[in-house]
Amino acid sequence: MNFRTDLALERHESVPKSSIEGIELTVKECNGIKVTHITVTNEKGEKAIGKKMGRYITAELPGLERCADNMEQWSKVLADEIRSLIPKYGTVLVAGLGNRDITPDAIGPECISHLLATRHIKGEAGMPESLSGLRSVAGLVPGVLGNTGIETAEILKGVVSKIEPSAVIVIDALASRSLSRLGTTVQLCDTGVSPGSGVGNRRKEINSESLGVPVIAIGVPTVVDGITLALDLIEECGVDLAEEKRRRIVQSEKGMMVTPKEIDLTVKRAARLISLSVNRALQSDMSASDITAIVSTV
Amino acid sequence: MNFRTDLALERHESVPKSSIEGIELTVKECNGIKVTHITVTNEKGEKAIGKKMGRYITAELPGLERCADNMEQWSKVLADEIRSLIPKYGTVLVAGLGNRDITPDAIGPECISHLLATRHIKGEAGMPESLSGLRSVAGLVPGVLGNTGIETAEILKGVVSKIEPSAVIVIDALASRSLSRLGTTVQLCDTGVSPGSGVGNRRKEINSESLGVPVIAIGVPTVVDGITLALDLIEECGVDLAEEKRRRIVQSEKGMMVTPKEIDLTVKRAARLISLSVNRALQSDMSASDITAIVSTV
Amino acid sequence: MNFRTDLALERHESVPKSSIEGIELTVKECNGIKVTHITVTNEKGEKAIGKKMGRYITAELPGLERCADNMEQWSKVLADEIRSLIPKYGTVLVAGLGNRDITPDAIGPECISHLLATRHIKGEAGMPESLSGLRSVAGLVPGVLGNTGIETAEILKGVVSKIEPSAVIVIDALASRSLSRLGTTVQLCDTGVSPGSGVGNRRKEINSESLGVPVIAIGVPTVVDGITLALDLIEECGVDLAEEKRRRIVQSEKGMMVTPKEIDLTVKRAARLISLSVNRALQSDMSASDITAIVSTV
Amino acid sequence: MNFRTDLALERHESVPKSSIEGIELTVKECNGIKVTHITVTNEKGEKAIGKKMGRYITAELPGLERCADNMEQWSKVLADEIRSLIPKYGTVLVAGLGNRDITPDAIGPECISHLLATRHIKGEAGMPESLSGLRSVAGLVPGVLGNTGIETAEILKGVVSKIEPSAVIVIDALASRSLSRLGTTVQLCDTGVSPGSGVGNRRKEINSESLGVPVIAIGVPTVVDGITLALDLIEECGVDLAEEKRRRIVQSEKGMMVTPKEIDLTVKRAARLISLSVNRALQSDMSASDITAIVSTV
Repeated sequence: MNFRTDLALERHESVPKSSIEGIELTVKECNGIKVTHITVTNEKGEKAIGKKMGRYITAELPGLERCADNMEQWSKVLADEIRSLIPKYGTVLVAGLGNRDITPDAIGPECISHLLATRHIKGEAGMPESLSGLRSVAGLVPGVLGNTGIETAEILKGVVSKIEPSAVIVIDALASRSLSRLGTTVQLCDTGVSPGSGVGNRRKEINSESLGVPVIAIGVPTVVDGITLALDLIEECGVDLAEEKRRRIVQSEKGMMVTPKEIDLTVKRAARLISLSVNRALQSDMSASDITAIVSTV
Repeated sequence: MNFRTDLALERHESVPKSSIEGIELTVKECNGIKVTHITVTNEKGEKAIGKKMGRYITAELPGLERCADNMEQWSKVLADEIRSLIPKYGTVLVAGLGNRDITPDAIGPECISHLLATRHIKGEAGMPESLSGLRSVAGLVPGVLGNTGIETAEILKGVVSKIEPSAVIVIDALASRSLSRLGTTVQLCDTGVSPGSGVGNRRKEINSESLGVPVIAIGVPTVVDGITLALDLIEECGVDLAEEKRRRIVQSEKGMMVTPKEIDLTVKRAARLISLSVNRALQSDMSASDITAIVSTV
Repeated sequence: MNFRTDLALERHESVPKSSIEGIELTVKECNGIKVTHITVTNEKGEKAIGKKMGRYITAELPGLERCADNMEQWSKVLADEIRSLIPKYGTVLVAGLGNRDITPDAIGPECISHLLATRHIKGEAGMPESLSGLRSVAGLVPGVLGNTGIETAEILKGVVSKIEPSAVIVIDALASRSLSRLGTTVQLCDTGVSPGSGVGNRRKEINSESLGVPVIAIGVPTVVDGITLALDLIEECGVDLAEEKRRRIVQSEKGMMVTPKEIDLTVKRAARLISLSVNRALQSDMSASDITAIVSTV
Repeated sequence: MNFRTDLALERHESVPKSSIEGIELTVKECNGIKVTHITVTNEKGEKAIGKKMGRYITAELPGLERCADNMEQWSKVLADEIRSLIPKYGTVLVAGLGNRDITPDAIGPECISHLLATRHIKGEAGMPESLSGLRSVAGLVPGVLGNTGIETAEILKGVVSKIEPSAVIVIDALASRSLSRLGTTVQLCDTGVSPGSGVGNRRKEINSESLGVPVIAIGVPTVVDGITLALDLIEECGVDLAEEKRRRIVQSEKGMMVTPKEIDLTVKRAARLISLSVNRALQSDMSASDITAIVSTV
């Protein structure tokens, strides 16, 4: 690859169509959202796009600034896709990865603040009626290696071994190639995640193999890699960089994140949308407005 | 007074009915909320209940745990009462008093995080349509004397002299006599506020005289004074304390706040309700759901 | 007991001296701090003071407002005591229990923000020299049941099973009988903790049995139980309550926390002291000032 | 200019030496810090480097990762320079500009959390001895236009008119040309600031003219403009862009901020250093360690 991205969709786009084997792709549109399903079916596909075998679902929203007016419909689309990836029964553990202290990396923890955690309230007295009959959900903000000294994968493995969920959903920030995707594209996949990849700190993989239960990763691009951005600008300027030169520059490590000025709003809006979508996926009998009302006050 | 409270209603309740002159009181019920209007009309009234001449509106909610389901109706009742106290036109400055770092004192700053500030967006390009035609609203979190070295009244006076609002709304935590009122009673008044009174640090008065424009105070009890609680418990135990003894104990300074264990939820819920009510009072053409959608994502 | 406290010292004080068997007590003074060692040696002792067999070390500081000038000496005393309770070698996991959103309950999480976590930096390039040769330390803020749906004990068990520390240190808020102890008394013990006891929500025990490794609990009183305070005031007033009546009142559940107005400073100061003490106990070759410098900037 | 920077130093470096009139420049080294004084003495100088007439002092630190070990000496150098810019007597108002919710923009508010505000404590009972005889200092976090609806300049003007300080110090994030300066260069100047310039939102000027008292701006680069970074990379690649083309690209508005991955640490360290330097400049009789001890616990 001669640029950096965590999105299967962007990798797929960059590959000459003729040469792809082992990739299935379908596109549909729901409620104004373009939903692309990419399935990597074998090793040829893996090699072609540099992503592991599995399913990658990408939802492209028309623009987060219209989020307030479309929360209900957009979250429905995402909830349906999330539900298609998780088992029907059993506790689901939702983990918000990333560092609260770095705005574009805070999307995971921010989502957990809006999560409807219910695993503990079965049979508790005085619970609002609206909370009975709910699916069991647990939430966790594991923190980051630099502060805890513990790999996120280790923390999750430990907690999974105790509470034995039927699935784990991890939410994390991603890096995309393009600024226009920040906060407006959501990637769901069943192949797990390397925490910190959005901010360039790849850590131990968190996936179905390492945790022993299905792992669904929900990622939202909140940064563009600095080198990638610069190279794209070069090309926009009409400068023709040799493929080889571009690749060499991409491989140099610089660790710069590029974000828009209003990154706080981007993260806030995307976290609202993702957390509502997860809550709806898990509590399929509740309406969006009921969930919003409860989460904002429980 | 032989107990401590910031609520005109509680003071009024403690005074023998026969002896009150200079107080007018009416009670009504709207959407399940008991709304009491107390007007202190002269100095006799002032002396009787220890509150300055002016209007005190107290709304008693059935219980904040049902807040999520009733946000729409409750905020309507409060919005109507707030609207009755402020001028129809002109910018309104809303100030959230109190210390973010002390949970029961954080209700003012927390309300400002949900305030729809609009004074700056007139004519800005790219604003959502829903934000055109809005009343001009400014918000401020002035901080507390211990951290800034500046009296809140001084900060507000300064800002008022620059932006010349037609009214100021200040939101602050109060102390009530009874635990059952915490987070469930809202007092509106047109006589201003002493910031910090809820947590026992009386500072320079903020009112129409000191600011030169109408000042509406919105207060929510989030603490009970420790001494008051103790004395009430003594009486519940059937111990009969002489009036004089009780008064002397009340006058001793101890500075203890009593809060329920789940004070974080109390503050969170009350802040949602108050901020929605203020937003609705100021933007009377918008629905509660439109405001909620915008505030949670703008 | 006819009052509520989490301090072994306060329970011991309330028991008639003649009747105590199974309790050993020694008192010493170091750097102006009164240090009391209480050992509950058998079931008689357990019953007498209502605390499990084990060691309880209580440090009574002269007053937190003088904390800034005495940080160096006080943390040395505490560090020595902590070191006496933990194994010499192996990773130590330090967990900060409690709810960040409730000021008096935030002391555990606040301590972890000042913890020198080192488990991950062995051999990392570019580390400051001062960080080589450090003992391996991991930190965790597990959150609270109401937000995560998972008992803290479960999270810790899971993480312990993965990182296999030689000991766990848990830091939590406590309730004491007396206001004067808030933030100025520190209890260390080797019998574990019930998270949330400070704020009246007892949860699954966290101790050596449940975690399978030595568990050292560090607790700081940050609240007084409302009922206990009220009853003490009654007695200060010269009212003589029958023992039986007092006990009955204590057993009624009310869930009120009493804190001083400046609880944010109390928690901040105590967290600084505890975290420095823990860091010094674990990194015995480093000076207090080196640790402070690193922690405030790494 | 064919790149974007808020640093007078970087602008000066880019101008051919022969052509500069109206600029005086001296360089010295203190405690390992390179300190450059640039004085723009007339309009020719203004035009040459695009900065207003006045003094610009730039301190270049050897690297923030060594901050912990050098805090004492580095803060001394900065304190001396700050002291040279402010009047000897009278209250000083220190304002922390920027948005707490955007990591690189949070440096101003973060500095105020470590500020020793003293204006209110003159004569307060129970103050530690160490706080008597202090210079009067006030602190303010005015918030950002998008949240308050009020220009920062308006808020400061209002507060200045009430508390009548002898000078105002404003602390803000800046944009520099080069990544290596982020968190390691500090610019002091007596020409004021446009809040938000670091993140590309220029607002009403805050300076001696607008506030009516001397205004000292302390700025720390925490972002690099995205376009500037990209263009520099292009040139590093050996691509020769025409001056004119470069300028046109720079003038296009994109609003992208580039930060390093560990921006949270950069901001934390720089805020510690700046706030300590300001505190030392204002309280010249106190040692760095006394100030640190008080600020971390008061």
